[in-house]
Amino acid sequence: MMKNAAVFGAGRIGRIHATNAAALPGVSLRFICDPVPDAAASLAHALGAQVSTPEAVLADASIDAVLIASPTDTHSDLIHRAAAAGKHIFCEKPVDLSVPRAMDCAAAIKAAGVACMIGFQRRFDPTFAEAQARLARGEIGAPEMLVVTSRDPGAPPTQYLKGSGGIFRDMLIHDFDIFRWILCSDIGDGGDAAETLYATGSVLVDPEIAQVPDIDCSVVTIRTRKGRLCQINTSRRAAYGYDQRFEVLGSKGLLQCGNHRPTEVVQSDAANVRADKPEHFFLQRYREAYRLELAHFFEGLHSGAAFRTSVADGVEAQTLADAAAQSLASGKVVAL
Amino acid sequence: MMKNAAVFGAGRIGRIHATNAAALPGVSLRFICDPVPDAAASLAHALGAQVSTPEAVLADASIDAVLIASPTDTHSDLIHRAAAAGKHIFCEKPVDLSVPRAMDCAAAIKAAGVACMIGFQRRFDPTFAEAQARLARGEIGAPEMLVVTSRDPGAPPTQYLKGSGGIFRDMLIHDFDIFRWILCSDIGDGGDAAETLYATGSVLVDPEIAQVPDIDCSVVTIRTRKGRLCQINTSRRAAYGYDQRFEVLGSKGLLQCGNHRPTEVVQSDAANVRADKPEHFFLQRYREAYRLELAHFFEGLHSGAAFRTSVADGVEAQTLADAAAQSLASGKVVAL
Amino acid sequence: MMKNAAVFGAGRIGRIHATNAAALPGVSLRFICDPVPDAAASLAHALGAQVSTPEAVLADASIDAVLIASPTDTHSDLIHRAAAAGKHIFCEKPVDLSVPRAMDCAAAIKAAGVACMIGFQRRFDPTFAEAQARLARGEIGAPEMLVVTSRDPGAPPTQYLKGSGGIFRDMLIHDFDIFRWILCSDIGDGGDAAETLYATGSVLVDPEIAQVPDIDCSVVTIRTRKGRLCQINTSRRAAYGYDQRFEVLGSKGLLQCGNHRPTEVVQSDAANVRADKPEHFFLQRYREAYRLELAHFFEGLHSGAAFRTSVADGVEAQTLADAAAQSLASGKVVAL
Amino acid sequence: MMKNAAVFGAGRIGRIHATNAAALPGVSLRFICDPVPDAAASLAHALGAQVSTPEAVLADASIDAVLIASPTDTHSDLIHRAAAAGKHIFCEKPVDLSVPRAMDCAAAIKAAGVACMIGFQRRFDPTFAEAQARLARGEIGAPEMLVVTSRDPGAPPTQYLKGSGGIFRDMLIHDFDIFRWILCSDIGDGGDAAETLYATGSVLVDPEIAQVPDIDCSVVTIRTRKGRLCQINTSRRAAYGYDQRFEVLGSKGLLQCGNHRPTEVVQSDAANVRADKPEHFFLQRYREAYRLELAHFFEGLHSGAAFRTSVADGVEAQTLADAAAQSLASGKVVAL
Repeated sequence: MMKNAAVFGAGRIGRIHATNAAALPGVSLRFICDPVPDAAASLAHALGAQVSTPEAVLADASIDAVLIASPTDTHSDLIHRAAAAGKHIFCEKPVDLSVPRAMDCAAAIKAAGVACMIGFQRRFDPTFAEAQARLARGEIGAPEMLVVTSRDPGAPPTQYLKGSGGIFRDMLIHDFDIFRWILCSDIGDGGDAAETLYATGSVLVDPEIAQVPDIDCSVVTIRTRKGRLCQINTSRRAAYGYDQRFEVLGSKGLLQCGNHRPTEVVQSDAANVRADKPEHFFLQRYREAYRLELAHFFEGLHSGAAFRTSVADGVEAQTLADAAAQSLASGKVVAL
Repeated sequence: MMKNAAVFGAGRIGRIHATNAAALPGVSLRFICDPVPDAAASLAHALGAQVSTPEAVLADASIDAVLIASPTDTHSDLIHRAAAAGKHIFCEKPVDLSVPRAMDCAAAIKAAGVACMIGFQRRFDPTFAEAQARLARGEIGAPEMLVVTSRDPGAPPTQYLKGSGGIFRDMLIHDFDIFRWILCSDIGDGGDAAETLYATGSVLVDPEIAQVPDIDCSVVTIRTRKGRLCQINTSRRAAYGYDQRFEVLGSKGLLQCGNHRPTEVVQSDAANVRADKPEHFFLQRYREAYRLELAHFFEGLHSGAAFRTSVADGVEAQTLADAAAQSLASGKVVAL
Repeated sequence: MMKNAAVFGAGRIGRIHATNAAALPGVSLRFICDPVPDAAASLAHALGAQVSTPEAVLADASIDAVLIASPTDTHSDLIHRAAAAGKHIFCEKPVDLSVPRAMDCAAAIKAAGVACMIGFQRRFDPTFAEAQARLARGEIGAPEMLVVTSRDPGAPPTQYLKGSGGIFRDMLIHDFDIFRWILCSDIGDGGDAAETLYATGSVLVDPEIAQVPDIDCSVVTIRTRKGRLCQINTSRRAAYGYDQRFEVLGSKGLLQCGNHRPTEVVQSDAANVRADKPEHFFLQRYREAYRLELAHFFEGLHSGAAFRTSVADGVEAQTLADAAAQSLASGKVVAL
Repeated sequence: MMKNAAVFGAGRIGRIHATNAAALPGVSLRFICDPVPDAAASLAHALGAQVSTPEAVLADASIDAVLIASPTDTHSDLIHRAAAAGKHIFCEKPVDLSVPRAMDCAAAIKAAGVACMIGFQRRFDPTFAEAQARLARGEIGAPEMLVVTSRDPGAPPTQYLKGSGGIFRDMLIHDFDIFRWILCSDIGDGGDAAETLYATGSVLVDPEIAQVPDIDCSVVTIRTRKGRLCQINTSRRAAYGYDQRFEVLGSKGLLQCGNHRPTEVVQSDAANVRADKPEHFFLQRYREAYRLELAHFFEGLHSGAAFRTSVADGVEAQTLADAAAQSLASGKVVAL
């Protein structure tokens, strides 16, 4: 049976989700809502949808699901209202920059009995998902150590950073989710959880970022209850593009996830042998992941199966981001 | 202005073209035609089109373009009829297994003044296209030598092979087009053309193929008028998947096009370090190329610009395939 | 002018140094000393040298240099005696497991006016040295972040571990030197130094290692005075061989040092595409580095130029190892 | 028992063989002969050998083996004289530019009952040897197709080319040996042999080479009696260095031999991701192969086992080179 959907937010990420939703079989994209009328109108027109408002959408009994792709500080309110209206929810990460507010969202969702999936799209990336599947099948034995490299091609404007919640909540939130997914998922071993976390960082890319205040490169160490070890390294600037890799060492081997490249051309000349840089940024790198995560959301609505990225996952990643911010501020190791 | 299109053929390749056409902005996919009613109906239903017949489509004044994805032996007739009806034509390769008949098609298209593009989708593959663009920009100097590796994951049924025209017309037709595109295009040097061709081959994969009669692996050497050299090697069986590579040596360097892989996972264990096999077959490997070539077709209809793969390209590739068949049969070098 | 040399220690590493010394032009390997007579005799015989004792060697006025490759707990005594005898010294890492004793050695060397080089052979590895040279030439701008991966193929016997000084002094001593070399060398920017260090680790490979007591996998984070960040990850077991990589992120790019492989064979089949595992262990991986470091030692003796790895480097790496041990024991970040 | 050896020729390749021989256990390098006295003297001095003449060497009953590394046109005469003197022979490729003269050499060797090995060093390259071993173990099933890429970094002086015998005898002789080794060796299948050969080529690198007369790039196709297919492509100029690869397709998979690189550094920046060029030329690329082939020669003298590269291999490769020259001249396929 067709699922009717509406999208809140017609910005960069809203356009991606709306376009993917419109192309999914079994999904009818009905409404686009955005406080900027032109943004909503042009997106709605391109996809054969209508412009609307959250109020109207939530009051429309024919709507099954809402996709929340509006600014972070609107998530909590929209989740509460959508849950109260009995709508299923897909919400972009993060749930909310405040862990208590995110936990309130989780409670509201549970109380309303609606389904909610958080947009940790990296879990749907074909490369990352294949690595996780092999790990879960035991192909490299028990996981022991995870190294995550996560670097943006360039720093966003400081104006953006001021409302971002800081590098840990804004950028590493994805990496904390990768940590939980890879080192803590129950793969027949009872799962695991973070026990201590240490974070430090610096302003090396742009001195203005210190005025935000924020940092632009960071390293995080997490040790789990079972003694597994995780290192995350991140920078707001990788001159060579978007660097998104992780590797997990197991008792029987290693799984490495490399970058994706636009083409497989290799050029050799008198200077050296050259391959493409990685895909430029997240819209390119995770194009397929965004498509697959939305397909997963609607499949879940159809089948009733649990989502791979629940609101609890959102809360947990946020909790690690808070711990990292606390570690950076105090210069100390944080117990979880 | 919207272009109205119909697709002839609802088989494997017809479904790809129809699906791509339906998703293109500025294109309205109106009709699907196929002698198998269920095939036509299910495809039409999935894409919001109608089932029709070639007769009705060609008589419908609102139709701008037809996409011919029916069996090879119907191409010539459909091209003639579509041209006569004033429809623009996208036709899957080959134009026709007979060079004279293919030339007749070219003449009919010219006489009718319609646009016609032949589906050499490899020219639209992002990797191959990037390599050709760099060559055309002079990044490796003058082209001197081309090595093409083109291997299928497995041999088709001998029943298919009986009507295929033989390995050179069925399989290497694409590689002959790559040769012309890479070594013969005018990149500010006046272009070039094949002067001699030598082909040989064997039945090593499946003895039944000898009964077709056909061969299942082959090597071809082409020397151009300017003395450039091309080697093509092909097999109907690569146990490791679809192997589609070429490399071109220039006076200042080398361009290599590698295989595409489903993921970038690398797994290391006590035995070795393992990466993914290449994409399984042409539907996966050239998924993006098929999308891009159809976009190119409709852009050309809108802009009036010449197509990258004209009917003349189809005729020329076919001529080389004929020469290869003649060389194999005679055991001799063929002058062109 | 020929330099006459003697080697103390005919074990695994002593044999390497002796063999390399014997093959160097301008060097005459005169004596081999080892408490195990057969070991000394067979090595001496193979290389055309004589068996001797430290006492005799140090008393022999014709000897210019001694190569100390005996057990770690003999280094300090031999350094003092060799310095007192006016012999130049090449000493395997570490100088001594105790930083104060290592500093005493440094003082004795300075007082005696002899030259002393410590065997941090990784600085002479062609791959690592090339990366450092490019960094020093400014090819990736200012260094910002270093990630070191250092994993052994398998854990040594616990008997060995009992005298090893622990994983940080025994194994990461090399990685601490890499950190200093890459992030702290003065490359026209005044250099840098460690400011804080955090280390944690686990016993995941072999529970017996906990009884030593020691750990078998560890992660270390170092932040420098300039805010540069370093992450080191190590394990006593990599099922796929000896994993020795580092990558340094700079303001303008990235330098990555990959593993070396025995051959460049790639095998593709129905399962996947396979390359060789990394070289098995340090004797293979650093074969060339051992040769080059000894050549550097004797070149320095001839030219009088400073060594790339001085006794001060040995003391500094040892200091970082001590800090790591302290951090592990306390669970806290250590200020340096 | 120690084998006493002498080297004829103190040029580039003579120095390599002499140096390798001097370092082999069980071998005593006694004499160096060269018509240029200084060349002989400096090499002899460096290696602790004496300068001598072929006459004296061949008359010296203590000499077990001679290593012929003198100019090609002296090989035949030296082989005959060495065989007559009862000396075992290691001879650089080619045996002789004339197949009949090469066959005379083979006959003389057989008559004298001495051992003779021809210096096809590529068979001892660790990468190539590993690929051949896996093929021989059946890891990719039955061999079907071989593609050899063999390109020099730059053309030699035309003065050299005038005495070289042409590109097929001078340069492809190695590639013909690779063809025989990979596609024709008896790996439990009775072996195979060339049946037809086609060669063509051009002057694209340097017009002066046409005046030699010779060509500077060439492609060769060989079909065996069992229908296996081989393509060889060669150029006198690869702007990016010495390009030495081959790949063999079998019924169950593919073996590819890639280039060797000086280091494993990968550098990424705003432009692209860069690895080292291949090793510069044969002295670097085959350094280890030259060492291993000479070790094989002396091991064979000790053990009496047959050499991997016999004088018959030299004659056969020369025969293929002749056929290629004939094919080029006639423009026709040559039957073997």
